[in-house]
Amino acid sequence: MAKTASFKNAPWMRDAWYIACEEKALKKKPLALTLLEEPLVLFRSSSGKVAALEDRCPHRSVPLSKGRVCGENIQCAYHGWQFGGDGVCRLVPALGDKMEAQKARARAYPVREKHGFLWVYMDAEKPPASEPVGFPLREVKSYQFFRYEMDFDAGMVATAENILDVPHTSFLHKGLFRSGKLKPIDVEIRNHADRVEAEFFGEPRPKGIVGSILAPGGGVVRHVDRFILPSLAQVEYALGPYSHLMISNYLSPINRDVTRMFSEIGFRLPVGGGAVKRIVMPLAKRIADQDYDILAAQQETIEKFGEERLFSTSADVLGPRILQLLKRASKADSKPLRRTNQKLTMYV
Amino acid sequence: MAKTASFKNAPWMRDAWYIACEEKALKKKPLALTLLEEPLVLFRSSSGKVAALEDRCPHRSVPLSKGRVCGENIQCAYHGWQFGGDGVCRLVPALGDKMEAQKARARAYPVREKHGFLWVYMDAEKPPASEPVGFPLREVKSYQFFRYEMDFDAGMVATAENILDVPHTSFLHKGLFRSGKLKPIDVEIRNHADRVEAEFFGEPRPKGIVGSILAPGGGVVRHVDRFILPSLAQVEYALGPYSHLMISNYLSPINRDVTRMFSEIGFRLPVGGGAVKRIVMPLAKRIADQDYDILAAQQETIEKFGEERLFSTSADVLGPRILQLLKRASKADSKPLRRTNQKLTMYV
Amino acid sequence: MAKTASFKNAPWMRDAWYIACEEKALKKKPLALTLLEEPLVLFRSSSGKVAALEDRCPHRSVPLSKGRVCGENIQCAYHGWQFGGDGVCRLVPALGDKMEAQKARARAYPVREKHGFLWVYMDAEKPPASEPVGFPLREVKSYQFFRYEMDFDAGMVATAENILDVPHTSFLHKGLFRSGKLKPIDVEIRNHADRVEAEFFGEPRPKGIVGSILAPGGGVVRHVDRFILPSLAQVEYALGPYSHLMISNYLSPINRDVTRMFSEIGFRLPVGGGAVKRIVMPLAKRIADQDYDILAAQQETIEKFGEERLFSTSADVLGPRILQLLKRASKADSKPLRRTNQKLTMYV
Repeated sequence: MAKTASFKNAPWMRDAWYIACEEKALKKKPLALTLLEEPLVLFRSSSGKVAALEDRCPHRSVPLSKGRVCGENIQCAYHGWQFGGDGVCRLVPALGDKMEAQKARARAYPVREKHGFLWVYMDAEKPPASEPVGFPLREVKSYQFFRYEMDFDAGMVATAENILDVPHTSFLHKGLFRSGKLKPIDVEIRNHADRVEAEFFGEPRPKGIVGSILAPGGGVVRHVDRFILPSLAQVEYALGPYSHLMISNYLSPINRDVTRMFSEIGFRLPVGGGAVKRIVMPLAKRIADQDYDILAAQQETIEKFGEERLFSTSADVLGPRILQLLKRASKADSKPLRRTNQKLTMYV
Repeated sequence: MAKTASFKNAPWMRDAWYIACEEKALKKKPLALTLLEEPLVLFRSSSGKVAALEDRCPHRSVPLSKGRVCGENIQCAYHGWQFGGDGVCRLVPALGDKMEAQKARARAYPVREKHGFLWVYMDAEKPPASEPVGFPLREVKSYQFFRYEMDFDAGMVATAENILDVPHTSFLHKGLFRSGKLKPIDVEIRNHADRVEAEFFGEPRPKGIVGSILAPGGGVVRHVDRFILPSLAQVEYALGPYSHLMISNYLSPINRDVTRMFSEIGFRLPVGGGAVKRIVMPLAKRIADQDYDILAAQQETIEKFGEERLFSTSADVLGPRILQLLKRASKADSKPLRRTNQKLTMYV
Repeated sequence: MAKTASFKNAPWMRDAWYIACEEKALKKKPLALTLLEEPLVLFRSSSGKVAALEDRCPHRSVPLSKGRVCGENIQCAYHGWQFGGDGVCRLVPALGDKMEAQKARARAYPVREKHGFLWVYMDAEKPPASEPVGFPLREVKSYQFFRYEMDFDAGMVATAENILDVPHTSFLHKGLFRSGKLKPIDVEIRNHADRVEAEFFGEPRPKGIVGSILAPGGGVVRHVDRFILPSLAQVEYALGPYSHLMISNYLSPINRDVTRMFSEIGFRLPVGGGAVKRIVMPLAKRIADQDYDILAAQQETIEKFGEERLFSTSADVLGPRILQLLKRASKADSKPLRRTNQKLTMYV
């Protein structure tokens, strides 16, 4: 199987915004983290400007994150060299006024603050063509929000597929999410240039307690699963004109083996936020733990065998399309999406 | 030194039966284990049939061993796909009656139950040409048996050589097995198509307590060490027409670094089984621990240096021949065995 | 960046003496250790002669260090083979008088005892062209000595540069060693065939308590930092005709990632050895711990990025020259030293 066809080694978009961390996670001290396999240091200058540099002093390869903020610069802990938020060397103390080290630049990545998160544009070579989109519904007054963060020991595509996959809920999450006899539902899959989504028709409300909360009156639910480039996996539920729930999961690839998920549930429901917090969130946690385990087992198996096996059927509505979107977006593949809008029936 | 000449990277026979585990180790839940570097899942269907598949769901590379038995099939924990004991996909629940996934097969290995063990034929591509031989003497009424299982952190040939090697007993097991001044004994080495054996003539009975038990009257012992393809290392002692002891060690290569040994001592002795259990078994355990340590040190040294050194003399009667047998059997080498039957004297 | 230009992969001289351990560390039992990535066994024969062999029995790759001393030989724990201090096989017990294994030699390295240490010449192929130099001042009566030993998780050149680098002391060791405003000092760099040294002129005495002890009267200090092939990093301080302190750090590369430092402080000072022991040594320990941490972080960063970044300025007076010396000495580079004697001013 060709390497590019695998979920595990799926290409990432570099010219895109990824969440690095919550804004409040960056305090006075520089913060080390990794995105797309790049060790980064984030720091907030004295004037409050946030910057992201590669976490390696050009002088002697010491991590800048061991240093400290010094005015508008970050100062290396080893020899005191200072770098601005643009990565340019501003001071080599031992040289006094001499500037021999102007070319000693640390790679600098654009950063933005939005909706309480720090977003990093992972292409240091060119300016961003857009701004981070942030969380939908965030500025709509009638919605309430919960937020959580979680690491999966799996690649980004496997994680995104898991989040957006419906059939596995009847097995992996049996009893928590769905239960009983499988029933046919209709699915419409819609391809767009920057996203792919699947809408489910005639789906009964989710079984179990989660269903009772999300759609207390029962009945048919509108359900859309959606992947938006580069890494937003979104699950949307609606029941009638009032009940609406949108789970937005921004996925930040740490590396090929770890994906960090920054999630926000935005909702407008007949039940209060308290019920969601007390009942939905603990269940969501148990579901997420089951997903964590199966994704870690999937990845461990890929490592053991030294290669991935993927055999997709028509019921795998989003995974293969996510992979194709990413391959096109990262120029790893220039073919148009194979299958355009499509309808099918599946059993869940 | 060529890779194929090394003990550590000795070829394995694939078209052969290996012990996977004791029959009783496989309960209702599927069992994960590794043989010849292949992660396997064993399961016993509702009708009692045992099957062995590669431990990877063809759909998304999740280990099947995390699933459960479902009638005659094993069901994957992730999306509920079911596979028969032949590895063929029988059901994709989300597809209902549609069978898009008939080609999604998991590799299936023949399995047999014999003498309390599950034996797996490690060539999934062709049917076995023979049946597992099992343990000799097993069905002879006048014998008693003890059984034990142990992992060595070493390759299979190094482990087999260690089990069948006589000279090391005077040093590594000094005081436990042999002791005092070395004495000459005559050895006859006999090559066969599927085995090689060394018979020792004029060997005094083993020194120490073990000797007293195995041959209480003293005198000359008949002693044969034998390796039978693909992985049986056998030590046989006889004294006169009555006393007889056969230690059969089936070696299952887990991978290049770990070899699992399934041993059975079958014996007919003037002393009762109780004496063997109380005295011989604890001594055997101490001897095995010393062997474990030296084999682990040998392997660690090979890793440290990045290559193996082997310098054999005529006193290394079986190791080089075991390697050659395996190379021929696995088609890595088509040369006939260099040395045919041979007699020599060595000091132990 | 070319591999040979990196500190981490700097070549080592093989035809050179390295300290293996203190003399007293080698007792009756053979001692395993590693130098230049070679696992070695050191042993002292019954007549008191010390030998160093590769730690691998030629017979079956078992570490000889698991064996024992047997007269003038070392005996392998597995089959009792014996090897002399020259690595030649002297006895294969199972063969009696037959000598089939004379060609089974373990590589042998020259060893010397000097100044309380065991020195190994790391080229087993040719006899040493010189003898170990040992510690300067060691035989001068008026000096006192302290000795310590420490491992750095870093390559040898990065460690040597760190020991001999002045500018980092103002930042990494702020408060302990230097403090306050940076001041200009003049440096003269002198290249020789086997060494490179930097002498600092007009340097105020080191700040803080260390300075008070080393130069209680204050005033200008003569300070020379010196690297001598293959691995001696020396720091020398003098104040007037009496006070003199020489820190000699012999670096033994264990491998690319670990460097062992054997240090001796030789001094003749107005304060007694007690004050040095009570005050200078604990401070030296704190300084060494800070250096340990930054070197480990440097190396970890190189591993994370998969390559080293080095951007040297004129204030990096010794590191690049040490690298060049080693490249010439190990024949990795035949160019003469680029820069000859040179004067410059830097701020510390």
